[in-house]
Amino acid sequence: MTDKLKSQLRFLTEADKMKSVSRQTLLADKSREETDAEHSWHFALMAMTLFEYAGFGGIDLDRVIRMALVHDLIEIYAGDTFAYDVKGNESKDERESEAANRLFALLPTEQAVEYRALWEEFDRMDTPDSLYAAAVDRFQPFLNNYLTDGHTWVKHNVSSQQIYERMSPVKTALPALWEFVDYVIQDSREKGYINF
Amino acid sequence: MTDKLKSQLRFLTEADKMKSVSRQTLLADKSREETDAEHSWHFALMAMTLFEYAGFGGIDLDRVIRMALVHDLIEIYAGDTFAYDVKGNESKDERESEAANRLFALLPTEQAVEYRALWEEFDRMDTPDSLYAAAVDRFQPFLNNYLTDGHTWVKHNVSSQQIYERMSPVKTALPALWEFVDYVIQDSREKGYINF
Repeated sequence: MTDKLKSQLRFLTEADKMKSVSRQTLLADKSREETDAEHSWHFALMAMTLFEYAGFGGIDLDRVIRMALVHDLIEIYAGDTFAYDVKGNESKDERESEAANRLFALLPTEQAVEYRALWEEFDRMDTPDSLYAAAVDRFQPFLNNYLTDGHTWVKHNVSSQQIYERMSPVKTALPALWEFVDYVIQDSREKGYINF
Repeated sequence: MTDKLKSQLRFLTEADKMKSVSRQTLLADKSREETDAEHSWHFALMAMTLFEYAGFGGIDLDRVIRMALVHDLIEIYAGDTFAYDVKGNESKDERESEAANRLFALLPTEQAVEYRALWEEFDRMDTPDSLYAAAVDRFQPFLNNYLTDGHTWVKHNVSSQQIYERMSPVKTALPALWEFVDYVIQDSREKGYINF
């Protein structure tokens, strides 16, 4: 076995830790928090299933799916930063950049560059692929939150304005879903999942 | 919102149950059994990371990745059948076919046909895509089993012959990994994870 293959198997073994990174979002049945591995899978399946509603052209769905598979890998070392955690998000970039240096160094150079570039593009949200990916990545926990009586919104006292801002990529990348997003936020206010 | 979009959101909500289907395989840190959603993600990431070692041409990696994402969806209703469970595998086809009828009916026709076809092709193992997919799908729990002191092999008293048979797709689809597979099985015998 070559050193290259050995390093790839080490990377794939390290990637197993994505099954132990907990997110704030609950499973739809409220039994527990979902893991990063589960979120990445659900995100990829959603990107595939909702693709016909993409609001602009120039998206390579297969690249988006690969982006979904690798977009949270750095959380193995950096942990999951809750979207509405202001303080956590201040230090997020530095923590994640250090984590990326450590994680992608496990891979052969060419693959390290490829995976890191996918993650960085996802984070920058400045291409059709990454804008569509961001919309789906945000819609997945949004849906699960609604199905679990606004679990993370209630827990962290999130405002409707914060949710509208967080969900704004859906407006352009998945415009057909905006009516539903708007309905969910209004209904969640009426039900008291969101207080203001 | 159209009825079509509603049905797709219902399907994606039902798909959340993949996070509650437990497999026999443990996480590498032995903390618990992995879920179908986690396995599907790890399988897709492995297919992507090990693709350069594919043993034959004509494989469309993007189709393999989509196959990985949907290949276990029917287990939401049919449950996970352990690979070495002879009795469970006798009734597997019928249970899974019924589950597929129920699950894919949630989707609009065109998408139902697409997802079901990917799952059926995966199961038949008669195309370059599905042969490569089968090899990766089997290698993932094999690696985790070795990392967890042969957990499922010990628990179910699996023989080395059964493992060699189960892993045989790796020989042609990922020949560079066969030396490692062979080493793991021999080492597991020496360590007593496999008794005969």
